Amino acid sequence: MTIRRVAIVGLGLLGGSLGLAIRERLSEVKTLGFDHSEETRRRAAERGLADTVCDTLAEVVREADLVLLCVPVGAMKAVASDLAALVPADCIVSDVGSSKQSVMRDLLAALPGKTVIPAHPVAGTEESGPDAGFPGLFAGRWCILTPPSDAPPDRVAELRTFWEALGATVEIMDAEHHDLVLAVTSHIPHLIAFTIVGTASDMEEVTRSEVIKYSAGGFRDFTRIAASDPTMWRDVFLHNRDAVLEMLGRFSEDLTAMQRAIRSGDGDTLFEMFSRTRAIRRSIIEEGQDDAAPDFGRRH
Amino acid sequence: MTIRRVAIVGLGLLGGSLGLAIRERLSEVKTLGFDHSEETRRRAAERGLADTVCDTLAEVVREADLVLLCVPVGAMKAVASDLAALVPADCIVSDVGSSKQSVMRDLLAALPGKTVIPAHPVAGTEESGPDAGFPGLFAGRWCILTPPSDAPPDRVAELRTFWEALGATVEIMDAEHHDLVLAVTSHIPHLIAFTIVGTASDMEEVTRSEVIKYSAGGFRDFTRIAASDPTMWRDVFLHNRDAVLEMLGRFSEDLTAMQRAIRSGDGDTLFEMFSRTRAIRRSIIEEGQDDAAPDFGRRH
Ligand SMILES: NC(=O)c1ccc[n+]([C@@H]2O[C@H](COP(=O)([O-])OP(=O)(O)OC[C@H]3O[C@@H](n4cnc5c(N)ncnc54)[C@H](OP(=O)(O)O)[C@@H]3O)[C@@H](O)[C@H]2O)c1
Ligand SMILES: NC(=O)c1ccc[n+]([C@@H]2O[C@H](COP(=O)([O-])OP(=O)(O)OC[C@H]3O[C@@H](n4cnc5c(N)ncnc54)[C@H](OP(=O)(O)O)[C@@H]3O)[C@@H](O)[C@H]2O)c1
Repeated sequence: MTIRRVAIVGLGLLGGSLGLAIRERLSEVKTLGFDHSEETRRRAAERGLADTVCDTLAEVVREADLVLLCVPVGAMKAVASDLAALVPADCIVSDVGSSKQSVMRDLLAALPGKTVIPAHPVAGTEESGPDAGFPGLFAGRWCILTPPSDAPPDRVAELRTFWEALGATVEIMDAEHHDLVLAVTSHIPHLIAFTIVGTASDMEEVTRSEVIKYSAGGFRDFTRIAASDPTMWRDVFLHNRDAVLEMLGRFSEDLTAMQRAIRSGDGDTLFEMFSRTRAIRRSIIEEGQDDAAPDFGRRH
Repeated sequence: MTIRRVAIVGLGLLGGSLGLAIRERLSEVKTLGFDHSEETRRRAAERGLADTVCDTLAEVVREADLVLLCVPVGAMKAVASDLAALVPADCIVSDVGSSKQSVMRDLLAALPGKTVIPAHPVAGTEESGPDAGFPGLFAGRWCILTPPSDAPPDRVAELRTFWEALGATVEIMDAEHHDLVLAVTSHIPHLIAFTIVGTASDMEEVTRSEVIKYSAGGFRDFTRIAASDPTMWRDVFLHNRDAVLEMLGRFSEDLTAMQRAIRSGDGDTLFEMFSRTRAIRRSIIEEGQDDAAPDFGRRH
């Protein structure tokens, strides 16, 4: 691999996991890390999230072969502008942002003439910050690259090799399609989880203590997702607005159909709708994207 | 404890777990099990879900101190009618159904003069059938009793002691309030999960294979819940219609507010809504109702 020096900007869950995964699986690669928060830099150095934790952007990208932007998607534009004068000529600039059209636009605009190849590893947990990262985050997960149409194929291949070395499987698609797919498999599920947890907190007839006690009936699963970082998710919804609104419209229509079936006591329709969903679960387990154990293998 | 002989009707996840939990924790209690399906009875006998698996309702309830109906809520009425002439005079008739107003009505109507004390252990997984049960299902979970107002307090106390012996914590509430609380903490989460998994399966622009591959972004959590038994859930929605429709209305309003904030690019509102939901997750973990490990402790 020609990537020997990687600069990680943003040392939270994704940035930290990248640093740790590189140390574990690509020991010949040197990592440098930067975060705008001094406290995060201190903690990152303590945990060894990068070989060297730097105090400035200039230091972190010096002689880098690959820069990975691991900040919220709303921060990409500003970070990219700050990097414009600093990125070495041959360096690949990539990121891990959860939406891709706006990030691609921002990076290309701020970094004319540079090799920009946006990416999104579909892997995460509900935790964030410098204590959240762990080296196995990407193993067995997918990483989607959305190179601009004129990206040099050999540089795309290099980035693919890099992600594969971290245990991910790489797929290439255009940014617009990415944003539609992820609206369905990630953004709408998060929006729904944030909403239902909010609805439950606001009720007068049911106390918060009751909601907590009886959460094992299903609600607790939604609280995990709704415990995700508010800044990250605000940015995702602001930057993938069109695809999210489109998918939300379809979900609402389907929910109305369910509501109608319940109201009219139409058990056959309900049964039919509830019977179609098991197959997807089975495929997800077969494809290694979830645990086969009941209840995620939770302790009982 | 005065309960020495327990009849379990329905040998799926709940009935089977009860039989196994009683063997493990109440070894002096004899269990008898019945299921209308011969195949399930055979498998239940193989797994030892009850000390004796019976071929008729008459046999299973003979001399029972407690009958536990572990069938879908839509089947309670018919089973109770069949039991009417068979239940011993001093026997407590209880159940584990996920909704309580309709079950209470059905049992009281079918079993006049008998001691009816409906119950609902708030514990389960997405699996069903005679292979799904395990003895630890109720440990650390809540079990809600909804006794009719004229239930003899000493019989309610006996049933409480029974559930506590299985590791559950018991709470008493009226059936109407139960149905409202569970609509929030269980029924609406299931309805939403079934719906979004259905929406995702039906899309033209995003293939099913893409939905499966990139499910680790959040969607896979919903597929677990949506893999639950269609018969059980059809019955829950038909029998807890009013509370479900009421809560669904509030959820839809809150979702519309989210939609509006996204459409107008109102990041402050989104941030504020996403910031309120973490506290509930923390409380659920503190109260022992979920695993503290990130991502439910899933293997990565
Ligand atoms: N979490 C997931 O499940 C997941 C999965 C896939 C992709 N992603 C994407 O990965 C990116 C990072 O998310 P994360 O989960 O790692 O979030 P995180 O744990 O909050 O980490 C982000 C880090 O970036 C720092 N930061 C913010 N603005 C910065 C700037 N201008 N310059 C330098 N550092 C800055 C943050 O510091 P402060 O907190 O002090 O501002 C924080 O330390 C996001 O684009 C997200 O969409 C997340
Ligand atoms: N699953 C959960 O998470 C959960 C949690 C708490 C409470 N509950 C409640 O527990 C009850 C049982 O659910 P479960 O999850 O144990 O479902 P399950 O695994 O499908 O078990 C139900 C069993 O009852 C049998 N059955 C159906 N009608 C019957 C009848 N008329 N006479 C005798 N047996 C009959 C079924 O046989 P066939 O399949 O052959 O019809 C099946 O073996 C339901 O009321 C449900 O609402 C479920």
